[in-house]
Amino acid sequence: MLVETTGSEVRQRGGRRPRGDRVQTSRRPNYRSLRNSLTPQQVFSADQIENIHDTSLRVLEELGIKVLLAEARQIFRSNGCLVDDDSMMVRIGRDVVAGALATAPRSIPAYGGARERDLVFETGALAFVAGCGCPNVTDLDRGRRAGTLADFEEIVRLVQTFDVLHMHGPHLEPQDVDLRFRHYATARAQLTLSDKIPFVFARGTPQVEDSFEMMRLARGFSEDEFRNGVHCYTIINTNSPRQLDIPMAQGIIDFARAGQVTVITPFCLAGAMAPITVAGALTLQHAEALAGIVLAQTSRTGAPVVYGSFSSNVDMKSGAPAFGTPEHAKATLGAGQLARYLGLPWRAGGGSAANISDVQAANESQFALWGAVLAGATVLVHAAGWLEGGLSLSYEKLITDVEVLQMMAELFTETPGDAAAIAFEAIEEVQPGGHFFAAQHTMARYRTAFYEPLVADWSNFGNWTEVGSKDATQRANGIWKNVLEEFQPPIQAAETAPMLDEFIERRKAEGGAVPVS
Amino acid sequence: MLVETTGSEVRQRGGRRPRGDRVQTSRRPNYRSLRNSLTPQQVFSADQIENIHDTSLRVLEELGIKVLLAEARQIFRSNGCLVDDDSMMVRIGRDVVAGALATAPRSIPAYGGARERDLVFETGALAFVAGCGCPNVTDLDRGRRAGTLADFEEIVRLVQTFDVLHMHGPHLEPQDVDLRFRHYATARAQLTLSDKIPFVFARGTPQVEDSFEMMRLARGFSEDEFRNGVHCYTIINTNSPRQLDIPMAQGIIDFARAGQVTVITPFCLAGAMAPITVAGALTLQHAEALAGIVLAQTSRTGAPVVYGSFSSNVDMKSGAPAFGTPEHAKATLGAGQLARYLGLPWRAGGGSAANISDVQAANESQFALWGAVLAGATVLVHAAGWLEGGLSLSYEKLITDVEVLQMMAELFTETPGDAAAIAFEAIEEVQPGGHFFAAQHTMARYRTAFYEPLVADWSNFGNWTEVGSKDATQRANGIWKNVLEEFQPPIQAAETAPMLDEFIERRKAEGGAVPVS
Repeated sequence: MLVETTGSEVRQRGGRRPRGDRVQTSRRPNYRSLRNSLTPQQVFSADQIENIHDTSLRVLEELGIKVLLAEARQIFRSNGCLVDDDSMMVRIGRDVVAGALATAPRSIPAYGGARERDLVFETGALAFVAGCGCPNVTDLDRGRRAGTLADFEEIVRLVQTFDVLHMHGPHLEPQDVDLRFRHYATARAQLTLSDKIPFVFARGTPQVEDSFEMMRLARGFSEDEFRNGVHCYTIINTNSPRQLDIPMAQGIIDFARAGQVTVITPFCLAGAMAPITVAGALTLQHAEALAGIVLAQTSRTGAPVVYGSFSSNVDMKSGAPAFGTPEHAKATLGAGQLARYLGLPWRAGGGSAANISDVQAANESQFALWGAVLAGATVLVHAAGWLEGGLSLSYEKLITDVEVLQMMAELFTETPGDAAAIAFEAIEEVQPGGHFFAAQHTMARYRTAFYEPLVADWSNFGNWTEVGSKDATQRANGIWKNVLEEFQPPIQAAETAPMLDEFIERRKAEGGAVPVS
Repeated sequence: MLVETTGSEVRQRGGRRPRGDRVQTSRRPNYRSLRNSLTPQQVFSADQIENIHDTSLRVLEELGIKVLLAEARQIFRSNGCLVDDDSMMVRIGRDVVAGALATAPRSIPAYGGARERDLVFETGALAFVAGCGCPNVTDLDRGRRAGTLADFEEIVRLVQTFDVLHMHGPHLEPQDVDLRFRHYATARAQLTLSDKIPFVFARGTPQVEDSFEMMRLARGFSEDEFRNGVHCYTIINTNSPRQLDIPMAQGIIDFARAGQVTVITPFCLAGAMAPITVAGALTLQHAEALAGIVLAQTSRTGAPVVYGSFSSNVDMKSGAPAFGTPEHAKATLGAGQLARYLGLPWRAGGGSAANISDVQAANESQFALWGAVLAGATVLVHAAGWLEGGLSLSYEKLITDVEVLQMMAELFTETPGDAAAIAFEAIEEVQPGGHFFAAQHTMARYRTAFYEPLVADWSNFGNWTEVGSKDATQRANGIWKNVLEEFQPPIQAAETAPMLDEFIERRKAEGGAVPVS
């Protein structure tokens, strides 16, 4: 067994296996429902977390939050909050907060278009969402440009393809579609090209109701059935500091009443919209998130809410936002402590401020990713493709980030530590200075032992040069093009198109729905 | 205070501060002696770790290790091991291993050329070493080429410049220097250009003795003084599986007797030189590391040894080594558990198999870095610049990796969580929808609040385009050139050159020292 054996010979030996013997021929781990196997890290003591929570309660009680929507103020008022309609300030007592926290669900099952796409939002689970909210898109062929519906549909196809991207988001703004009709186009793309959980923008009740109706049509639910399960979600960004605008407040109310998930995410850039300290930024974030949770729970008891964190810092020389910084990671770790203090599922934010998909972009995104994973985030938004602090979405970076997400998913898989894995017999079989390529222990495992990379090229410099010296970004370019070329939507999803188109045609004829601002 | 205020106005306000008022004007954290603030992660249960340890003892007891150096076999024999000189196999009883582990120091103080460069190798501390062992170097201007002494000296200057690189290593092979004289050149470069702890290659006693003499000359120690403190280190790689060659065995003996550190690092690529399972690769690694520790402790009781881990996997399709993979990270986490089980300081390995400093290289290196940090590694080798699995060292990647190491060092700094940091008053000061740029709380902290990046560019797309659309690697190119241009060696180090040159001239005239193989 000690002849020199190459990898190709290992393959050959595999080929000699008797026919009919069922062997898994490649690694196929389940990336669809991740459980985070890492122990959460802390940046604050338990006392400090209690102090942050308590100070947030003081902020809500003593300072209050400005709520621009009259209906929301009325809900707060009728639930015992102190409301001043002239200043639009709402002060929320800690008893009201405690009541809301008591009814917010700890575990939220959510349903995709196929059972394998279902998710559960709860402590210990982890879902990744590609970059969101980008006005622009960029790729190596077409350059940086304003996002279009064609781009949106391409990104939906890419997201649908990779299991490690768990649900959709408002990845980019299809700027070629009128705002009155844009929500039809984005809902249609998500529902006809994918069976993953879709995102609905909270841009006022008319658009939200349109979108809910499309979800019901596509997935075949009555209004009651729809309301009794989670089938889509939205992200609510407060206007930090201490302000909740009309569409966001309306979104909380509408989604709560419809039983759909709101991810209530203050966007607290330390030094700009929030105190310059990590603890201060989190105190503000926590207060605003709690205010949103109160509005959701008082709109409908038990409404599914996800605690949201997206606190990073700005460059104090220029005021420019930064992501994937040490302070961003610290804020995320602290947010995880606060979310666990509440016991609620929660989202973190990733991404990079780099202008192209380069080494800076990779380093910042991965640093933010580890911050979120080590914080025990339940959902990580902007986990792939997000550049320029959200001003553009990169096709190539989406692919190279998916690689890192898959590596993380692999890290979560069990590492066998039984006697067979410890492999005394294999060590005995191979003589000093020999190799394990042909060992029985290797032969039995080599097909499925290791992560098989999507983009990484491990060939040597000579071989790599011969095939064109392509860097990872160039290879990623080939990968997304290939995915789009070969893409087939889930049959059931594709079949919903005529029904949705009929609805869209009718609504367009009626003038669509003007977004509320 | 609620007028629109930009970052530049923040700076201006800072400028109005009365003269004579001492204010720290930029962030200057201590990157020189890092303490890892993160809680170690586990991939194996305590039982599994005990089983791996116990199986390693069985490997040493029942199977043995092949030791090519007669002197080493004699030392093993005289300490109760079973030695067969014909097969060169040494079998080590668990009592002998236990004895060695009882005398191996848990904490190893090591001395640089200045007190601020001193390190302690112990659980909880963390030192970073740039990429090592590379035959080639690469940069954007000069391309990929065989390493020269000029390159070696440039890398020493870069390593000296960044506090977050804590000691030197055999970064590259200066192939333009005859092997009989190469150790003079590399020792001279480290001792005259830097005050950080130098590395000495274990290529036989004559070279090692030469190098020790140069350390003593440069740092002003007698033989006794030198032997009573750690002033340099070497890395011992076993020839996995289960083989210790002549220069490596000799190195363990020579360094132990001279009281200098050996980092005993089996290089166990799962599927190739080690079992294909993480647990199996670690069992072999552990056995080999224990054998080296036994040789060190039996050569001199209490000899400073660092447990070494560098277990990753190969691509089973091609046999190519891979780094920064999920399996590499898992192996590092498991190695940390084994090192803590022994209570010894230990090293991990980072790096990437990418052929250029691209997104793959960044992603693999950072993934390996987190694996090592979360494993509680005491020393991380190949932490910056290492490409092609060690076949080349990249100047630009060294810089971009230093950025990530600095970010990690920042993450380790304390995150204030007291009332001043929680900042209720700042939140009270800023009205809803306002901003914190001009808040008193911000003004008091903005100069030192956040990490200031080395390479990252957070400017917007327009400004970034105007100044040339440089990616991170291109910017890193400018940074290393600037560092080399402005480099000044520590005065005391530079002053040792004439003394060292005299020694080198004499030894060269005597024929130098032929490396042992």
